[in-house]
Amino acid sequence: MVLNKIYVDNLIKTALLEDINYCDVTTDYLIPVNQDGEARFVSKADGIICGTEVALRVFSILDDEISFEILKNDGDEVKKGDVILKLKGKTTALLKGERTALNLIQHMSGIATASNRYAKIVEGTKASIADTRKTLPGLRPLQKYAVMTGGAKNHRYNLSDAAMLKDNHIDAAGGITNAIEKLRSKVGHMTKIEVETRNLEELEEALNAGADIIMLDNMSPEVMKKAVEITNGRALLEASGGITDETLRAVAESGVDIISVGALTHSVKAFDISMYIN
Amino acid sequence: MVLNKIYVDNLIKTALLEDINYCDVTTDYLIPVNQDGEARFVSKADGIICGTEVALRVFSILDDEISFEILKNDGDEVKKGDVILKLKGKTTALLKGERTALNLIQHMSGIATASNRYAKIVEGTKASIADTRKTLPGLRPLQKYAVMTGGAKNHRYNLSDAAMLKDNHIDAAGGITNAIEKLRSKVGHMTKIEVETRNLEELEEALNAGADIIMLDNMSPEVMKKAVEITNGRALLEASGGITDETLRAVAESGVDIISVGALTHSVKAFDISMYIN
Amino acid sequence: MVLNKIYVDNLIKTALLEDINYCDVTTDYLIPVNQDGEARFVSKADGIICGTEVALRVFSILDDEISFEILKNDGDEVKKGDVILKLKGKTTALLKGERTALNLIQHMSGIATASNRYAKIVEGTKASIADTRKTLPGLRPLQKYAVMTGGAKNHRYNLSDAAMLKDNHIDAAGGITNAIEKLRSKVGHMTKIEVETRNLEELEEALNAGADIIMLDNMSPEVMKKAVEITNGRALLEASGGITDETLRAVAESGVDIISVGALTHSVKAFDISMYIN
Amino acid sequence: MVLNKIYVDNLIKTALLEDINYCDVTTDYLIPVNQDGEARFVSKADGIICGTEVALRVFSILDDEISFEILKNDGDEVKKGDVILKLKGKTTALLKGERTALNLIQHMSGIATASNRYAKIVEGTKASIADTRKTLPGLRPLQKYAVMTGGAKNHRYNLSDAAMLKDNHIDAAGGITNAIEKLRSKVGHMTKIEVETRNLEELEEALNAGADIIMLDNMSPEVMKKAVEITNGRALLEASGGITDETLRAVAESGVDIISVGALTHSVKAFDISMYIN
Amino acid sequence: MVLNKIYVDNLIKTALLEDINYCDVTTDYLIPVNQDGEARFVSKADGIICGTEVALRVFSILDDEISFEILKNDGDEVKKGDVILKLKGKTTALLKGERTALNLIQHMSGIATASNRYAKIVEGTKASIADTRKTLPGLRPLQKYAVMTGGAKNHRYNLSDAAMLKDNHIDAAGGITNAIEKLRSKVGHMTKIEVETRNLEELEEALNAGADIIMLDNMSPEVMKKAVEITNGRALLEASGGITDETLRAVAESGVDIISVGALTHSVKAFDISMYIN
Amino acid sequence: MVLNKIYVDNLIKTALLEDINYCDVTTDYLIPVNQDGEARFVSKADGIICGTEVALRVFSILDDEISFEILKNDGDEVKKGDVILKLKGKTTALLKGERTALNLIQHMSGIATASNRYAKIVEGTKASIADTRKTLPGLRPLQKYAVMTGGAKNHRYNLSDAAMLKDNHIDAAGGITNAIEKLRSKVGHMTKIEVETRNLEELEEALNAGADIIMLDNMSPEVMKKAVEITNGRALLEASGGITDETLRAVAESGVDIISVGALTHSVKAFDISMYIN
Repeated sequence: MVLNKIYVDNLIKTALLEDINYCDVTTDYLIPVNQDGEARFVSKADGIICGTEVALRVFSILDDEISFEILKNDGDEVKKGDVILKLKGKTTALLKGERTALNLIQHMSGIATASNRYAKIVEGTKASIADTRKTLPGLRPLQKYAVMTGGAKNHRYNLSDAAMLKDNHIDAAGGITNAIEKLRSKVGHMTKIEVETRNLEELEEALNAGADIIMLDNMSPEVMKKAVEITNGRALLEASGGITDETLRAVAESGVDIISVGALTHSVKAFDISMYIN
Repeated sequence: MVLNKIYVDNLIKTALLEDINYCDVTTDYLIPVNQDGEARFVSKADGIICGTEVALRVFSILDDEISFEILKNDGDEVKKGDVILKLKGKTTALLKGERTALNLIQHMSGIATASNRYAKIVEGTKASIADTRKTLPGLRPLQKYAVMTGGAKNHRYNLSDAAMLKDNHIDAAGGITNAIEKLRSKVGHMTKIEVETRNLEELEEALNAGADIIMLDNMSPEVMKKAVEITNGRALLEASGGITDETLRAVAESGVDIISVGALTHSVKAFDISMYIN
Repeated sequence: MVLNKIYVDNLIKTALLEDINYCDVTTDYLIPVNQDGEARFVSKADGIICGTEVALRVFSILDDEISFEILKNDGDEVKKGDVILKLKGKTTALLKGERTALNLIQHMSGIATASNRYAKIVEGTKASIADTRKTLPGLRPLQKYAVMTGGAKNHRYNLSDAAMLKDNHIDAAGGITNAIEKLRSKVGHMTKIEVETRNLEELEEALNAGADIIMLDNMSPEVMKKAVEITNGRALLEASGGITDETLRAVAESGVDIISVGALTHSVKAFDISMYIN
Repeated sequence: MVLNKIYVDNLIKTALLEDINYCDVTTDYLIPVNQDGEARFVSKADGIICGTEVALRVFSILDDEISFEILKNDGDEVKKGDVILKLKGKTTALLKGERTALNLIQHMSGIATASNRYAKIVEGTKASIADTRKTLPGLRPLQKYAVMTGGAKNHRYNLSDAAMLKDNHIDAAGGITNAIEKLRSKVGHMTKIEVETRNLEELEEALNAGADIIMLDNMSPEVMKKAVEITNGRALLEASGGITDETLRAVAESGVDIISVGALTHSVKAFDISMYIN
Repeated sequence: MVLNKIYVDNLIKTALLEDINYCDVTTDYLIPVNQDGEARFVSKADGIICGTEVALRVFSILDDEISFEILKNDGDEVKKGDVILKLKGKTTALLKGERTALNLIQHMSGIATASNRYAKIVEGTKASIADTRKTLPGLRPLQKYAVMTGGAKNHRYNLSDAAMLKDNHIDAAGGITNAIEKLRSKVGHMTKIEVETRNLEELEEALNAGADIIMLDNMSPEVMKKAVEITNGRALLEASGGITDETLRAVAESGVDIISVGALTHSVKAFDISMYIN
Repeated sequence: MVLNKIYVDNLIKTALLEDINYCDVTTDYLIPVNQDGEARFVSKADGIICGTEVALRVFSILDDEISFEILKNDGDEVKKGDVILKLKGKTTALLKGERTALNLIQHMSGIATASNRYAKIVEGTKASIADTRKTLPGLRPLQKYAVMTGGAKNHRYNLSDAAMLKDNHIDAAGGITNAIEKLRSKVGHMTKIEVETRNLEELEEALNAGADIIMLDNMSPEVMKKAVEITNGRALLEASGGITDETLRAVAESGVDIISVGALTHSVKAFDISMYIN
């Protein structure tokens, strides 16, 4: 599994503890403990699957003798009706894990599908789509992985692994130049420094101070185009803020390197998948 | 706080550990440890606020001397531009907590706003809107609370507190009647029993067997109307499956008691809120 | 396993961490790491066994190659001398897990046996025995499961899944009728409402306000009999408070539906079981 | 607090998460968030109180502005009707914490009261009462503390801090003498070694091999008396097994040093305490 | 606190649970619960202090009314005899927290002092000292922070925030050039790519393929000097492997940018600090 | 495994979560998920190995189909170049676990090797080397086990399992005699009592009061020799404080029973081990 397995197991256990206080009063009272069953996950829409192994892991945790067949791996394209995963195991485990597994794979596939859609819109331009730190508590690893699986890129993981200078930081340090210099003297050599800018003057200062990446905050495609010219490869440019489906292509064609989209993780539409149990 | 405070604190700590491996390399290297600042949360849209106390708690955990003014409580309606919460405290705490607090309040307010919108659509009918178990791992308490705050109702919390008979349960027990009887002899007196039905024959059997609630799965408003007549108050009726914004009112007017909507929690659109720091 | 496996594993791990700071200074210094051994759990009393799979799980966690034979399943009646479980595995694992496994199975079987005894006393009447929230911290799932295994019923699981109106709630809401109405407008359709009453006037008010269950708090069997007549099936009646072994049958014969007994979980007598290792 | 505060907080949080999935549907829907209330814990029986600070901590965790008056400290004797603790704070916190606090203080006081009763029976003899490792999972610290509060003594805490040689250890090491010698060469100087013996021959061997404590397993008071004579102060003697209320005094008068009683912690009778809220 | 406060609290709680199973049998049996005391942390050596706030936090967690005076902040130089921290609070809290607080501050100050010593050796050259992932389980945040406090730099935090190509990666990808290209197409724009090289040929290939940083693995200062010439600013160069106190200055003078030193965190010498309690 | 397996697994999971936020951006992007590989752990120095099973467990957790051959068990002597452990499994698991496994086995072997060196210095005298509570947070079980593996002894595990009287305790109790008597009346029969003394007068008082162990704090070998004579076997004597490599043998020859060395665990030098992957 590409995702950290320890994290995945912890998350699944959290979900199962949330969903079962002590037993499943319907299943445990009606289904014989040793009844075997089969299940299939079937896509109800077109998109990119993400979370097959995670969904499978839900059942392995509940029943260590589960057997399975993976038909669609993370990143695979599916059409409505495609079978994603087949399972054989105890019916009680299938029923108890069903909702948790669906909640996970639908969320992850929803993110992967949206990421893929955005990535396709900017195809052929220099720009790539990136996620943000606008993730749901406890789900960041899952969400970042799904973004990547869908074909978009991951921005910094968190506040520790890259620097992002905002107004407050710049003001406290006495301007962009001072801020970058002070930071550069402290952070390690693996840490990139990005600066938020609101206009071309700030862009120029950031460039001269040696920022690695410069965020163009809420600028129009036209201004971005100028920014690209001014920058001329001296730093990476990230477009951010107020970008919609309609404006995305224009932004990408301005020549920026990255377009970050919070909605990839903060406003996820679940991807429709059903689980059928026999 | 209405939400279980222990849960809220654990969730916030999970989020802060996710967002900060060891320190915030931008803030901790540039902002003096003792610098004080002020912040305001401002709504960028119209809707129902949910999560003010949760957002505030993020900062209290980071800085136990934070002072604050709550302007919009959970459940309050806001207009774009309304101030929700004001804070005074260490700038470093404000900056480190910003994203975590926003991620929480935006998600919760998104759910509350959608729940409210659905609830208004069915206003004047007998129906109420209910959530489902289609929640995100680790977030069920938060999401259920936001649904309720927005004016919709909570379905069963999990697999332990109410029974829901699906095909597999019914087949294993030898039919609806047997299944309900067997369950009734085992579950406690506080546990309600709901049965999924796909047609009016199953409805009749469930009614005769004494189900507390009967789910009408993927039926048309017309069939539902018949179901309401047949039932005649002997059980509560829940409409579920394939209900869209367009069909919701018609479903509600069929006379059903509950309409459950998975999208309330599985496909949340973040509610736009900004945090400004001075 | 009927009990939530994640919960069981967490509980066993808590117990083993409590019982072994770093190693077992007797076993680890004297018993060869690869020595194999056999063990049997033997009942030293007559009663109902509960916890066989939980006890077994202690050893599976310590030694993933353990082999076993289950002779008595949860809910089975045992006589003094009956063998419950046989194990083969590493002697060190058998010795390290012995106390933890016994502590669990003795507690669970103690609850199941007492629950069974109470259930038998009321046999032939309309009443069933129910547990309460008077459980030990961290053990509620285990205890509720053992009650059910012994043949008694589970009351509400916790404060979230059913409503129970006490004096303070009723006073704050302005009387029983107001309280029930207010609650009914807020809770979901799967949530039952129970009201505590201390006399027949309160009972009548609760009935008229549509309570699902009415608790008769510390009433005599004679008063309860009147309560049953007044109620006439309009709600379930729960007897609670001051019921002893001597009065239990009389209470049951009053016609109430449920008799709740805190002692089932707050005053458990361990059921005597020994583990023999060869 | 004498008990490890970190442990106590963790345990209380576990209990509150168990008792509240997301909110208290009765209290949170009916009691105004800012309503203040008062509560008193009152003893309904005679005995030794244990757990006042723990019970108080439940409310401090739920409401950090709780105010209180402690009238009975851990270890104090109470009579039926005595007030133990008074509280002032939010009514919602009082209601949500009530059951958890009672479950804790009733269990702890039950143990302290029983420990005290046993200790009094042996008063005037050389013997002291000790607990065992027969504790409930997750509750060992609490239970050991309550035993000590009641006036009995704590046996070894767990498998790591003292050695206890049983049959299997002795057989694997080739006899009592070999086992003690081998152990003595490995354990640290703070670790005592106890040996289980079933007859006076084993006692003699254990004495000669230099055991610190010798357990007399299931011996009659007469045989114990002989064991005391033979031992003549060369080791401490612990009586264990099959000791009842009736035989306890006779065992104590045999001259043994310690009488260990598993029932102190494995078969606890809750001590009756009520909480009244105004 | 610069270090993530949630992490720090969790770590301290882990340490206190490790050090106190249920109570401190010496302190809790002999020191009156309400006795007040004072304590001072005094340096017994010359070096750089790190961990003052962390040590203080141990006592705040044990006694929320502790009062204190910080005399030496993290990063301050101390001489033998200097007072670092003064405390006033319950004597029991001071005694129970002493060892945990000392273990933390001595370890952190040991790291900071060593980091500072290394940083001074390379002063005046272009090189800075960096740590590695050779940290102790559970202590990485603490150790990375102490390195930075002492004046050295942090390398990548973990496997997720920067790429480091080793033999196995390069072989699997079919050479350095392929590996860098493939990686560049997948990682986000905030992620730097470092390549391990063992000779100047590999260095050239890595440079041409656009590596951000190139590690010179186990090369002599002479070869490093050539590497610096060849590189001519096109990438950062990191010296690693087999560097001793004696060779460090020579390595730094070769012109490399970073010298990484595993011993900073894997072989820490505790810095001698005493705590005196009155 | 001698070490508590639950503890070991928890520690490894903590380390892996620390080292991988969501995935390994180098390995997961470049190494095919199903590629198999082999690895060997090779000693780069002479010493005592400790942690083979712990290192192996890292890989079992990441890849449950790992196969392995253990060539050096915990406690075995190794020479530079000796192979310790061979592994076959997924290359991705080998690469992701490498650093965590090395960090563990290097730390443990470092402690075992140092413990062994100290133990050899005192060989032939009556003295044994003991560790202290000067351990790193979260690592005490691991460190105590490594000390024991190396041939030194474990002192008390923590504040709960043995009593150690320091100045503050003695002062609060009104002198050594009072303190010991008071403690003896409270602690259980498995708990030893040690007293810190600074001179021979205190030693005499402690002996007369019946201390089990007496610590000779910072005394010269000559004074210790007198202490040994005075004591004459009435208690165990522990030398502590200011003992260096140079003075250790002289201290041991003074006739003391135990010499405790904090550096065994607070100032560990990692033992050099490499892992090679093919």
